[in-house]
Amino acid sequence: MGAEYAASGYDKEAVRDVLDKALAEGRDSLTAPEGRRVCEAYGIPTPGEGLASTADDAVRLAAELGGEVVLKIVSPDILHKTEAGGVKVGVSGDAEVSAAFDEIVANAKAYKSDAAIDGVQVQQLLRGGQEVIIGSTTDPTFGKVVLFGLGGVLVEVLKDVTFRLAPVDAGTARGMIDDIKAAEVLKGARGAEPADAGALADIIKRLSDLVTDFPRIREFDLNPVFARPDGASAADVRILLDAEEPAQPVQYSQEEILATMNRLMRPSAVAVIGASSENGKIGNSVMKNLINGGYAGEIYPINPKADEILGKKAYKSIGDVPGDVDVAVFAVPAKFVPQALREVGEKNVPAAVLIPSGFAETGNHELQDEIVKIGRELGVRLLGPNIYGYYYTPQNLCATFCTPYDVKGGVALTSQSGGIGMAILGFARTTKTGVSAIVGLGNKSDLDEDDLLTYFEQDDDTNVVAMHLEDLKDGRAFVDAAQRITKKKPVVVLKAGRTAMGARAAGSHTGALAGDDKVYDDILRQSGVVRAYSLNDMLEFARGIPVLPTPKGENVVIITGAGGSGVLLSDAIVDNGMSLMEIPPDLDEAFRKFIPPFGAAGNPIDITGGEPPSTYEATIRLGLEDDRIHALVLGYWHTIVTPPMVFAELTARVVAEAREKGIEKPVVASLAGDTEVEEASTYLYDHGIVAYPYTTEKPVAVLGAKYRWARSAGHI
Amino acid sequence: MGAEYAASGYDKEAVRDVLDKALAEGRDSLTAPEGRRVCEAYGIPTPGEGLASTADDAVRLAAELGGEVVLKIVSPDILHKTEAGGVKVGVSGDAEVSAAFDEIVANAKAYKSDAAIDGVQVQQLLRGGQEVIIGSTTDPTFGKVVLFGLGGVLVEVLKDVTFRLAPVDAGTARGMIDDIKAAEVLKGARGAEPADAGALADIIKRLSDLVTDFPRIREFDLNPVFARPDGASAADVRILLDAEEPAQPVQYSQEEILATMNRLMRPSAVAVIGASSENGKIGNSVMKNLINGGYAGEIYPINPKADEILGKKAYKSIGDVPGDVDVAVFAVPAKFVPQALREVGEKNVPAAVLIPSGFAETGNHELQDEIVKIGRELGVRLLGPNIYGYYYTPQNLCATFCTPYDVKGGVALTSQSGGIGMAILGFARTTKTGVSAIVGLGNKSDLDEDDLLTYFEQDDDTNVVAMHLEDLKDGRAFVDAAQRITKKKPVVVLKAGRTAMGARAAGSHTGALAGDDKVYDDILRQSGVVRAYSLNDMLEFARGIPVLPTPKGENVVIITGAGGSGVLLSDAIVDNGMSLMEIPPDLDEAFRKFIPPFGAAGNPIDITGGEPPSTYEATIRLGLEDDRIHALVLGYWHTIVTPPMVFAELTARVVAEAREKGIEKPVVASLAGDTEVEEASTYLYDHGIVAYPYTTEKPVAVLGAKYRWARSAGHI
Repeated sequence: MGAEYAASGYDKEAVRDVLDKALAEGRDSLTAPEGRRVCEAYGIPTPGEGLASTADDAVRLAAELGGEVVLKIVSPDILHKTEAGGVKVGVSGDAEVSAAFDEIVANAKAYKSDAAIDGVQVQQLLRGGQEVIIGSTTDPTFGKVVLFGLGGVLVEVLKDVTFRLAPVDAGTARGMIDDIKAAEVLKGARGAEPADAGALADIIKRLSDLVTDFPRIREFDLNPVFARPDGASAADVRILLDAEEPAQPVQYSQEEILATMNRLMRPSAVAVIGASSENGKIGNSVMKNLINGGYAGEIYPINPKADEILGKKAYKSIGDVPGDVDVAVFAVPAKFVPQALREVGEKNVPAAVLIPSGFAETGNHELQDEIVKIGRELGVRLLGPNIYGYYYTPQNLCATFCTPYDVKGGVALTSQSGGIGMAILGFARTTKTGVSAIVGLGNKSDLDEDDLLTYFEQDDDTNVVAMHLEDLKDGRAFVDAAQRITKKKPVVVLKAGRTAMGARAAGSHTGALAGDDKVYDDILRQSGVVRAYSLNDMLEFARGIPVLPTPKGENVVIITGAGGSGVLLSDAIVDNGMSLMEIPPDLDEAFRKFIPPFGAAGNPIDITGGEPPSTYEATIRLGLEDDRIHALVLGYWHTIVTPPMVFAELTARVVAEAREKGIEKPVVASLAGDTEVEEASTYLYDHGIVAYPYTTEKPVAVLGAKYRWARSAGHI
Repeated sequence: MGAEYAASGYDKEAVRDVLDKALAEGRDSLTAPEGRRVCEAYGIPTPGEGLASTADDAVRLAAELGGEVVLKIVSPDILHKTEAGGVKVGVSGDAEVSAAFDEIVANAKAYKSDAAIDGVQVQQLLRGGQEVIIGSTTDPTFGKVVLFGLGGVLVEVLKDVTFRLAPVDAGTARGMIDDIKAAEVLKGARGAEPADAGALADIIKRLSDLVTDFPRIREFDLNPVFARPDGASAADVRILLDAEEPAQPVQYSQEEILATMNRLMRPSAVAVIGASSENGKIGNSVMKNLINGGYAGEIYPINPKADEILGKKAYKSIGDVPGDVDVAVFAVPAKFVPQALREVGEKNVPAAVLIPSGFAETGNHELQDEIVKIGRELGVRLLGPNIYGYYYTPQNLCATFCTPYDVKGGVALTSQSGGIGMAILGFARTTKTGVSAIVGLGNKSDLDEDDLLTYFEQDDDTNVVAMHLEDLKDGRAFVDAAQRITKKKPVVVLKAGRTAMGARAAGSHTGALAGDDKVYDDILRQSGVVRAYSLNDMLEFARGIPVLPTPKGENVVIITGAGGSGVLLSDAIVDNGMSLMEIPPDLDEAFRKFIPPFGAAGNPIDITGGEPPSTYEATIRLGLEDDRIHALVLGYWHTIVTPPMVFAELTARVVAEAREKGIEKPVVASLAGDTEVEEASTYLYDHGIVAYPYTTEKPVAVLGAKYRWARSAGHI
């Protein structure tokens, strides 16, 4: 069934003609024959069909097509054809076809007496195969996205669909088919023949190219597409249009972004607009933090009423500062920002850090629009407003009103919310997380996540990025930047507002299915980031990922003193998308030599609870030294024979010895015991083993996050 | 379609005849006509049908039934009818029916030349409606369970099914239909008429009664059942039998259990078998813990080689002890346990606490069987073996080799694994969780979770129970005990081994679908327990549930200083099965009076970050005092204006004032800020507000656990 199409070039002209005509007529949807013409122009297979003007036409067409046919009214004035009695399914034989034609036309006239009737579409009836849906919609964050899912009422209820940013390449399109939960159905469950996945992927690719070439196609449903063992064809097409071209967000080149970001993060001179000598003022806290934090560049307090602030010469206006200024930190009330920003622009300062609140977040959109306009005009990029400021430890830079942070390391953290920023600060401090940057993004009036990712990508002082975000201003710019950086460095994202998005008004199934967190989830994964689903996970992933070496393969082995921990650790490994290595017989034999006869080799390797330190040591060493094992998960059980700190020290030593020999494998540990296990966990963490007391799930979740990144970056 | 049956009494005799015949013939499955007879006897509707011996018979039957029919070979020797070419679907008209009969018989003979052929079943063809599956299997843990799910290949892949313990009452059967993810499909998605849920529930109930009455029915599939708007009928029946009656586990009455448990938990005298003066010996640690823990009853050390141990007179054998003994704690090697246990039995000690390992867990099943037999014979109930012992703080009883625990409170914790037991101890100690009991269950050779639940149910010193378990010896006894206690007290269960169960060999779809964690999950919920999915959740739920008052309704309100926390807290509320209250206009108005004009009322109530303590205080007080609000979730943002301890103290004070007025509502808090929020969280927890730093999800998860219990116990 289904006409065959050459996979050759697309007929853009034909599509343009159809769209132009519809738009010229003021329509925002295409008729079925128009939809079919669009499909044909891009080689999307549809069933054989024709337009009949008379009952005799219909009879002739049906005979040509052969078998059963479907008859549908074609009228620009009738959108809901079934409701209008304008559809007949499974008609065959001359008499039936002729009668169906007459009935449909009569029904349409009865439904809407003044409807313009173009004729009746006579279409091959597709039966058999599996119904799927392929579609596209225009997401407010990401623009054109394509969807794939199983069709029918069940999947509409279960919402088993997957999204990707358009355009997709052939491999991505093929991956979508395996990405739905019910993928097995298409592979031929219960003895059925498998569907032609190549043909489905081809349709996804063509649809994706089509909506990319024609941004005015707002929503596009191919539903159902019949997926057969020998091909696929779209039985129904629904296309909705936008009256206007969607607006394009302002874009900067990578070079432009880096030029600004380098000056923002590694400034030679910082001005504080609204610097103050008065304790408790934000302009005072910022000055103190800059000075006490150890920033080595020039600090210029700006205050019209002071000559000196905290020992630094003060200036009435930034215009009076003698040298170049890289960053202007604003600590003045919102209403004074526009004028001060103008002066900052006139001084050619490339970056303004806008701590003040009182802009869009309080409903004052006009004021925010005003400063954005000033920034654009004068070439000043804005961080904020409504932020706590930012830290950049390689420069000892604490441009914030919070307290200084001084544990240097490779973790860059950003947050859209100030509250979450403070949680980041407290968590990092209490866990001694080594940090390169903590950046508040607030209202994101200008600089946002993609600018930061572009900077962190080439920043040698940063090796992992963790971001809290509630929305993305420009989803495509984010995905571009994320796809680049995640090839080199892990990015963890906590996307808040997962469950609160609610449904959007949509005119297609695809549009309706896009109305929840699923689009974000799929496209964040497509961008290579590791998504955290809770604040604590984001923080622990950021802390733990840089501590763990990158695994070189999927073989995870559990070595445990507590059988009970082994079972829970196994659960966690499966929950986190990893799998337990099947231990080959020679390796099993080798482990057995070290453990009591009633201990269990296999995986988990249960060394049993009463064992001395030497048993932990021998099995962990074997786990590290055998090439076939790629990651170790340790379960420690507190006993008098092997107390917590003894376990911690021996483990740290064995891991260090292996690392000296060039053996780099991630090792995580869960410690079950009395309160001494807390100190032991901290000791282990300090020695490169991600360890936690009283939880089997957290160490495995961190390992899982590292694995997710390692896979998406192609290390495994 | 489908014959109608009276809902009257069941014809047990007819079922017994069918089963007896099949079993007498050595068969473990029923033929289709036998399956149909069984269904008829219990009023389960099936399509009209009959057995044809000749082609003419078949033609006559088809004419009687009307419409299309299905023909199926009936042969005890052919199990896979389709494979044998023994099924024809959608046959109509005399000629077709006659030809189909001949073809089927010929196919069957070709497939298996010596097959006994009883004839050909001629059955009404059911079309339309939604296919569902209703079934039953014999679970190794829970015995007879019934299943409901949507039928067809999709759901087989997605495994969208739900299980309940049989027998089910009418309400439970009805609840199953709403409990699957795709429940909407049956309610009439996409404009379809809703299926007759009453008819489906009726079939579930009848099937459940049937397998309860006839335990030899091992597996039972009604698949598919066609669910129509006006009824339902089972199109295909598959019944598998057990050659033998399933064995019944040993059962004790509640009175018997309590008699033993009361003496175990509140003993007047404890003997320590293998007590020792030698440091480092388990028999020495147990003695020290009993004495230093402050146990006020008699302590009898038993050791053939000592006269006195730690200042207590020692006895050669327990038989020499002058008075009654309630508990014998064993601290001797495994091989000495049987003889010592015999002496304990002869002394009429009702409970033995078996710390030693070296039994089933090391493969020594014989030794374990031996002690179980001795215990049964002599009336000694066994705790363990292979355990750390147990704590019962109301008696200052530390009958364990671990260190004493002395923070008294209402939480009883149990663990199957010693390692997890140690994690419980360390966690409880570091968080100062108030504990009534910590009990090791180990190999569960005798006493197990249901015995403990029976005790804790009536123990005034216990108000919440948390259990770690890997399996249940007797799932039904557990469910019975859990259903009783959870009406009064929350029970949290961490079931380990969720993901490792793998598939079981099964001869029916129902059996195959039962081969994972789903049975445990559904039946634990049916039993009223709150399931925790991680060790840390179990521990935090146990700690937090007794701190929170029981909510009186579903209206949860978030009051937050950080908008970012508000979004994450909202996510967590939905994730944990709660919902944000829709704030009525008058209440919204009342909140707005306290917050800045740009703050957001609604829910979350965002008081904004720069507010003084008085704003937190006024809004929290209003949240407590308004009757329509049932629970508060607080989001705190660390600022100079309202530092962490100021927030903690004012919140504790306002909550205490409300409680003095008799206003008991659960209040939880998430604190975002620098490290001072840790101290503030501890302060809040100590004052009855479940509070955590650096996480928005944990406080909401604990509130969610309390809600799950409150709902299942009927408080909401």
